[in-house]
Amino acid sequence: MRLAAFTDYGVRILMRLADKPDQALTTSGIASELQIPYNHLAKVVQNLARGGYIRTQRGVGGGIRLARAPQSIMLGEVVRFLEQRHAVVECFRSDGGGCLLTPNCRFKSKLAAAQKAFLAELDKTTLVECALPRPRVSRAVAKAK
Amino acid sequence: MRLAAFTDYGVRILMRLADKPDQALTTSGIASELQIPYNHLAKVVQNLARGGYIRTQRGVGGGIRLARAPQSIMLGEVVRFLEQRHAVVECFRSDGGGCLLTPNCRFKSKLAAAQKAFLAELDKTTLVECALPRPRVSRAVAKAK
Repeated sequence: MRLAAFTDYGVRILMRLADKPDQALTTSGIASELQIPYNHLAKVVQNLARGGYIRTQRGVGGGIRLARAPQSIMLGEVVRFLEQRHAVVECFRSDGGGCLLTPNCRFKSKLAAAQKAFLAELDKTTLVECALPRPRVSRAVAKAK
Repeated sequence: MRLAAFTDYGVRILMRLADKPDQALTTSGIASELQIPYNHLAKVVQNLARGGYIRTQRGVGGGIRLARAPQSIMLGEVVRFLEQRHAVVECFRSDGGGCLLTPNCRFKSKLAAAQKAFLAELDKTTLVECALPRPRVSRAVAKAK
């Protein structure tokens, strides 16, 4: 099973912000330190702001920071939010998909239970437990730039 | 989170074969009744044969059938096999991916636990519980053909 790259990026952003919740970081700063394209990150930041996970502040001294205490944010909640547009298989889409087995399928409810177990496992951990300092770029990577 | 379309197709094929394990079905027959492109299905059939889930027999009266009793095949096992080439996020790839947070990341182990919980949930159900008869094509779909 796969999570979308944007979900992965979203969790990375939150992990970085959780390191020093009172300190604002810029999207371009995070993009640079995580070596993720700025445009991708900017979209994820917008989405995280819409979900109430981060606040953005323009101007000097501005940037993005967590909108809630990191100890109140569960990983499962974040993944559930960021993945909401991605159906586990087609019959989970809002349009129901086109699978002809759907009316009698017993796999769907099992998959729903498995998805619930996946998220419940992630709900055991708060963002504060995954807070991460700025990554060190290894000499090899820095030299290659 | 998403499963690959080929995983979804693989489970559908096995669910159909589990309905009458002693009866061989043809790939083209399943493709037609499930309305899935033959070429896609043929690849999945090859993979399922490689995994020891189905046997294929050429010639008159040939086709594909389950290679094991459906009550001995757990859904989690099937999904684990069909998804083995898909990393949940990039750091789960065999090359380790390029995420700079990897050395200190605490999200990875939580994701691994969540993935395990997902599959453990699916391992509670056998294929025989999900066996499905040939789907009925509704009149609307039949007419549109």
